[in-house]
Amino acid sequence: MTTASDETHIATNETSHLIASNKVEGTAVYNREGERLGSIHSLMIDKRSGAIEYAVLTFGGLFGLGADHYPLPWQVLVYDTGKGGYVVNLDKAVLEKAPRYAGEREPSFDPDYGRDVYSYYGFLYPF
Amino acid sequence: MTTASDETHIATNETSHLIASNKVEGTAVYNREGERLGSIHSLMIDKRSGAIEYAVLTFGGLFGLGADHYPLPWQVLVYDTGKGGYVVNLDKAVLEKAPRYAGEREPSFDPDYGRDVYSYYGFLYPF
Repeated sequence: MTTASDETHIATNETSHLIASNKVEGTAVYNREGERLGSIHSLMIDKRSGAIEYAVLTFGGLFGLGADHYPLPWQVLVYDTGKGGYVVNLDKAVLEKAPRYAGEREPSFDPDYGRDVYSYYGFLYPF
Repeated sequence: MTTASDETHIATNETSHLIASNKVEGTAVYNREGERLGSIHSLMIDKRSGAIEYAVLTFGGLFGLGADHYPLPWQVLVYDTGKGGYVVNLDKAVLEKAPRYAGEREPSFDPDYGRDVYSYYGFLYPF
């Protein structure tokens, strides 16, 4: 389900296979039941390769301050043009136990952490 | 050359090997002579793989409107902590002939375009 305004929005910010980082940031994230889980705060990029290691889901707090940050593998996010946001196959109970950090207290993002995060969502850590 | 305020800034937004997309956006870009070429507008991400295909350098215009956008391979950008920005080995004469587009008129970003852009900067197009 794509509306004319969706088309316009897409045309100015993305193409068939690419999307702009500043369009991803702030995009809402829903679960399969249509509940809004939060939004994408930012993308954590490997400086050397330019690969996105995590898309960071956040909710709560004011402008991200005090909010929990949930690093997700990029592949978890599926864009839904009808919703104008990402849909993930996670319910709130899963997120309650998921790896997270306060925005002002980032983890070290070392390989052990990466493996924990990726395995939590059923992915191999590929970095 | 890293100052105490640099350290703080880094600690809240990046780690040793990762950097946040919203920290890259807006970061100044200089050439080797220290001339400010512009700033990073956004990153163009492959939706499927999460790879950054282009970092988009922009300058001129108001809030990006009417500004020229120069898609660069991510590997062109080298972060300089002393400058607090990226340094690229390009002078303004090179940029004057570089592939560009107006922000409101994005190219198709197809493989031919990608090969043109990457080869202009001396890289193989790896996507």
